[in-house]
Amino acid sequence: MSQLDSTWSYVDDSKITPKGFLFAGISAGLKASNKKDLALILAPKGSIFSGMFTQSIVRASCVDMCEDRIKKNSGFLRAILINSGQANACTGNIGLQHFQIATAKIAELLGIKEDEVLMCSTGLIGVPIKINDLVKNLPNLVSDLKVNNLQNAAEAILTTDLTLKKVLIETIILGRKIKISGFAKGSGMIYPNMATMLAFLTCDAGIEKEEWDKMIAIAVKKSFNAISVDGETSTNDSFVGINAGERIDKRFFPIIQKGIDIVCQNLAKNIARDGEGANCLLEVLVQGAKNTNDAINVAKTICNSALVKTAIHGCDPNWGRIISAAGNSGVKFNLNDVDLHIGNDQILEKGKLNKYDPQKVKDYIKSKMKGRYLVDDIVQIMINLNTGESKGTAWGCDLSKKYVEINSEYTT
Amino acid sequence: MSQLDSTWSYVDDSKITPKGFLFAGISAGLKASNKKDLALILAPKGSIFSGMFTQSIVRASCVDMCEDRIKKNSGFLRAILINSGQANACTGNIGLQHFQIATAKIAELLGIKEDEVLMCSTGLIGVPIKINDLVKNLPNLVSDLKVNNLQNAAEAILTTDLTLKKVLIETIILGRKIKISGFAKGSGMIYPNMATMLAFLTCDAGIEKEEWDKMIAIAVKKSFNAISVDGETSTNDSFVGINAGERIDKRFFPIIQKGIDIVCQNLAKNIARDGEGANCLLEVLVQGAKNTNDAINVAKTICNSALVKTAIHGCDPNWGRIISAAGNSGVKFNLNDVDLHIGNDQILEKGKLNKYDPQKVKDYIKSKMKGRYLVDDIVQIMINLNTGESKGTAWGCDLSKKYVEINSEYTT
Repeated sequence: MSQLDSTWSYVDDSKITPKGFLFAGISAGLKASNKKDLALILAPKGSIFSGMFTQSIVRASCVDMCEDRIKKNSGFLRAILINSGQANACTGNIGLQHFQIATAKIAELLGIKEDEVLMCSTGLIGVPIKINDLVKNLPNLVSDLKVNNLQNAAEAILTTDLTLKKVLIETIILGRKIKISGFAKGSGMIYPNMATMLAFLTCDAGIEKEEWDKMIAIAVKKSFNAISVDGETSTNDSFVGINAGERIDKRFFPIIQKGIDIVCQNLAKNIARDGEGANCLLEVLVQGAKNTNDAINVAKTICNSALVKTAIHGCDPNWGRIISAAGNSGVKFNLNDVDLHIGNDQILEKGKLNKYDPQKVKDYIKSKMKGRYLVDDIVQIMINLNTGESKGTAWGCDLSKKYVEINSEYTT
Repeated sequence: MSQLDSTWSYVDDSKITPKGFLFAGISAGLKASNKKDLALILAPKGSIFSGMFTQSIVRASCVDMCEDRIKKNSGFLRAILINSGQANACTGNIGLQHFQIATAKIAELLGIKEDEVLMCSTGLIGVPIKINDLVKNLPNLVSDLKVNNLQNAAEAILTTDLTLKKVLIETIILGRKIKISGFAKGSGMIYPNMATMLAFLTCDAGIEKEEWDKMIAIAVKKSFNAISVDGETSTNDSFVGINAGERIDKRFFPIIQKGIDIVCQNLAKNIARDGEGANCLLEVLVQGAKNTNDAINVAKTICNSALVKTAIHGCDPNWGRIISAAGNSGVKFNLNDVDLHIGNDQILEKGKLNKYDPQKVKDYIKSKMKGRYLVDDIVQIMINLNTGESKGTAWGCDLSKKYVEINSEYTT
């Protein structure tokens, strides 16, 4: 157990997850492999759901349905069914029917109302969901519901991911233990036709809907909306945050916000780190911006630049590409004010080249490229725009030949 | 000579270029190689200049200076000096001084005013221009000025380009021969720290400034602003269009506009085709949009998608990626209205999968991937959004391992 920000601590996630929540994950035969492909979150009565969904115009109907049901019920829902294998996107009316059949059936098994259930899908676009296999296995799924089952649920939502993405943290507020858990899938993109990022957060400190929506929006902006593997937004991107349990006093909201931020950033960074073909996590911190949006925009544009990403891959401290990418973010700044650091080395000071040893910076980047899943795989770039007081961070990864291979050598 | 649009014809560009314009291109020792690196356009008295420049916040000072001089002189200028080798970007006060020294000297040699001269630079960012070599060679450059010298000028502005990009077209209006010429550089990106796209157009039909600005803006929108190799905008991107000679009647403006469009699109397509590591030219036509901007936005977003580009590279008719990219353009449409063609095959009809032979479409893409510089290297994607009457086209290229190699294996 390591102390986080003198408040939150990481907990072994095979321990009991946030109070009142149950998780399940099984194989229902939706994937060609025998891997798990169906997950369920059952939230306690009175739980409050907040959802954020893909900004793409081309959305799976399940995404529209989720948004509608959260709105209709003012956030009071009970369960999320999640399948991998088929994204149920671009499947027309059949897609909508499958959503309705599956959520009606699981509601019946759980003794709740159909419209208290959300359903998120990920996998192949344009292919109908294997609805018979799915429905047939719903009783098995319900049997798997447990208080310490984050592992199964997290496994069941993966597609091309190479790593599990799950996290559990806890803190104590006035003698009361509070837990927040999260799990996610995403290799940062769509392949082959995979649709893309799903993440789910549960928290056992009760917070009313309006405030919860705000807190979730803040966390998502600084996490899932601040990562880029290849600049692609998918048809199914969804994030749902749920809280339940005794209400917590307003004065502790900043602590809860911090916890939500930690969970979301942990999952988001692991999605970026798991970007296809990636060898490192790229972390860009922008300081001295006029506001947080500007800071995140600049950071994200740098993370998203093919030229920065290939330079990092080649361990090349190519400051010209970093600055050029920053200049394309749409955010106004003056190059003559800009400080740029790569790792501990200052490259630019007030827009002028600083004395630095390129080989040392090269070695710094190289030391991070040993392969992902290592603790120390983070290449850090820091820019100070010196035009304001705000800061923001974005995460990405290097661009390798492996990325091209994975995404071009797929044959239909 | 081939007939174009029943009006304009391509002409061998070693022939005399638009009336009154002189071109030159020599080696001044700015590049490490012995290749040409200094070009000059001398326009006749009374010429009208219109310029469009990079939207990046990080601009070379020469770009600011060009914009200022065009504005200050209401478009009445006389010459453009262009160097390759050093971009004169991120070089601070020295960069500005070098611009002033070079333009003053060439103005003196040509007997015109200093502020009637523009100077465009391309090459390494952050490196001062080799100003002594440049100035020393200006008399040689002036000696090379000829009426049929597009070749030398076009050669001298290249950096990592693999192909020359130049074009000359002509038409006859009321018995008067009108010519438009253009030349450009650009491998679509910055490497190693190269800054990026320059293009110059000359026309010997006189058109007043306000109208000329409009015509140039229209042409650029449908050409240089509709290509993408990797979504990067550089510090130095510049386009200058010049007209000179006897004024032409307003009723012939549509013909001139057509000619400008042809020249700009020819150059723009050749920039996309010369994209680093590219094997084909990707052409995306969007029809049925509410307006031209929407159509170009959708087309450009598709051309810019790493997933579409890798799919094309793998000869994979991956319609899900194309539709998903379209959905990220910010343009509103309904998937249930969308028709999608790849080559001659219809993949989607009103959002539903059409019967088509994936192998046939794969073979179609494969047939275009024999390598660039072939006439028939264009992979065509056509989308009809069926929400309006407007259309637009964008151009890009496939994304290959070679791109990653070129951009990551550069060492400082």
